[in-house]
Amino acid sequence: MPDLWSARPTPYAAVDLDVLETNIARMAASATTRGLSLRPHVKTHKCLEIARRQVAAGATGITVATVAEAEVFVEAGFPDLFIAYPVWVDAARGARLRALAGRAALLIGVDSVEGARMLARHAGHDTVDVLVEVDSGHHRTGVAPARAGQLAAAATDAGLHVRGVFTFPGHSYSPGQAEVAAGDEAAALRTAADAVRAIGLEPDVVSGGSTPSASSTDGDVLTEMRPGVYVFNDAQQVELGSCSPAQVALTAYATVVSRRANRIVLDAGSKVLGADRPTWTTGFGRLPDHLDAVVVAMSEHHATVTFPAGVLTPELGELVRIMPNHVCTLVNLADELVVVRQGRAVERWAVAARGANT
Amino acid sequence: MPDLWSARPTPYAAVDLDVLETNIARMAASATTRGLSLRPHVKTHKCLEIARRQVAAGATGITVATVAEAEVFVEAGFPDLFIAYPVWVDAARGARLRALAGRAALLIGVDSVEGARMLARHAGHDTVDVLVEVDSGHHRTGVAPARAGQLAAAATDAGLHVRGVFTFPGHSYSPGQAEVAAGDEAAALRTAADAVRAIGLEPDVVSGGSTPSASSTDGDVLTEMRPGVYVFNDAQQVELGSCSPAQVALTAYATVVSRRANRIVLDAGSKVLGADRPTWTTGFGRLPDHLDAVVVAMSEHHATVTFPAGVLTPELGELVRIMPNHVCTLVNLADELVVVRQGRAVERWAVAARGANT
Repeated sequence: MPDLWSARPTPYAAVDLDVLETNIARMAASATTRGLSLRPHVKTHKCLEIARRQVAAGATGITVATVAEAEVFVEAGFPDLFIAYPVWVDAARGARLRALAGRAALLIGVDSVEGARMLARHAGHDTVDVLVEVDSGHHRTGVAPARAGQLAAAATDAGLHVRGVFTFPGHSYSPGQAEVAAGDEAAALRTAADAVRAIGLEPDVVSGGSTPSASSTDGDVLTEMRPGVYVFNDAQQVELGSCSPAQVALTAYATVVSRRANRIVLDAGSKVLGADRPTWTTGFGRLPDHLDAVVVAMSEHHATVTFPAGVLTPELGELVRIMPNHVCTLVNLADELVVVRQGRAVERWAVAARGANT
Repeated sequence: MPDLWSARPTPYAAVDLDVLETNIARMAASATTRGLSLRPHVKTHKCLEIARRQVAAGATGITVATVAEAEVFVEAGFPDLFIAYPVWVDAARGARLRALAGRAALLIGVDSVEGARMLARHAGHDTVDVLVEVDSGHHRTGVAPARAGQLAAAATDAGLHVRGVFTFPGHSYSPGQAEVAAGDEAAALRTAADAVRAIGLEPDVVSGGSTPSASSTDGDVLTEMRPGVYVFNDAQQVELGSCSPAQVALTAYATVVSRRANRIVLDAGSKVLGADRPTWTTGFGRLPDHLDAVVVAMSEHHATVTFPAGVLTPELGELVRIMPNHVCTLVNLADELVVVRQGRAVERWAVAARGANT
């Protein structure tokens, strides 16, 4: 291990800067090729240094999930943010949004008439502009695409400025579904944009995107995409086929603390890696340097890993890298990331928006 | 909602103090009845105020999972700690353990000869005493019970003071398995203790316990138990039958941000509740005030909840309480807990050991 960080106590998260920068450049080029604006979701990394690199590579703005994340990134000088969430704006949140207005251009999601009215009432009419959220098949938030016009009209009646429509095609997170989800996304957004036009508004933002479906995002229908995970990638993306193990930029470093036959236990568990485990994944993460190993169990401070019979397993005390299934939840558990270039630790980045959930 | 905290932005975690104190007292009485010492695992709550209540109720010491947790609780004046983990003690961890010695009595787990030798070499012989970890059926860490004597002998040869044996009967975390796991635990610890006696050492600590199996822990074989979750309980414990919903002391408060037919979406997701989801659970948590509801999906900032057809669902903007599947991972995501007595917020407790994973 490089001398600068060999004594760092495990577990910790480290970012390979070369891989990160390549991931950022690749997605930027992919968006440009299709004439799409790129507004990456920064909930994945929560780091100012990474968002700055994304903007330097051409991102037209950033996406956040919460008002608290917006506060962190506006404070750091980011001028253009979309809170891609149907925020319930009570008096307190309205005051917080007003405190951000004038310092940055803000967009926010709405998926109900009541939510739009709360926003107008507590944040005012000129604090934030609005995108109507539609459900393109993930069945989480968002109205049916054909109802986007009706909701846009209600938001307009409430005094809000409706700029367009957005969706999250989250059903791309299933093996073999990325292209299907991108198709659903384009169809839903086309219907929604037409429904908004039918009430006399021209949508200038038609926004979608997810990391698994990014390469299939339809540049004819959408104006912008908002992938997040692509900066780091993770075991889910590897298993979905959206990246190779070598394109994973963030891993946790853990120590082998127990070892029997073909099984080892690492000192990184759900309190470091997160416990995300979609049913279709092979386990609770992957080891990039041992792709034949399976992370069969995870508890708070243990990852149990099995190896095929006959394979030499890592020794007690050995450092082993592990990719989480879902890198966004790993990052939210870390106070800082070690930044590595060519095997040497060169920096540490604060996870500036860790825990910014409100 | 009580006026003191009605404006607090969701999501947040709140502890019902009456329920917490009843849970603490009940487990203390249960241990006493069987002649068992109680050394609760504080990784569940990571709060000094709760550990102090456990000690005041008769706990003979506390259990932690990491050296970093030990540092937090020794600094706060706790005099007797067991690090129930086969810590790999390199030079840096050895120095940290030595810095704690003299300020508190420390016990630590070992499950390999190599681990014991590292401990002796880097922490010294008088810094910490040792318990040999055995596998009682959870198949995570720990040696086979019959091998405990051999490992105790090696640790003794390395110059360490072996005080006894311990296990974690984690296979109690499966429906209907609590009594089976407690039986396995007693059998394994009896074998292990005998194996240690066979090399001429009298074990004065025979330690086990988990919240699901706590009421079946064998007071004839064990000298102490180390349950953790019982202070709060959670959706897993409810579904395992180890507590009732009314005995759950910690819940997250979330806002309904989206609503369609029989489905609502809350603004608390895996970045607040954790993503633990054992295959046998009904969903990603439970709503204590709506026990007929199912948390069918969870993403970072969304919990999707369905209700039976015909049931009135909570309104947009309504505050809804949600129990996580696994309260330990919720706590590790929170900076503080709101403390509520009789519906009024009376205090806030810092999660003093949040992120103390090394």
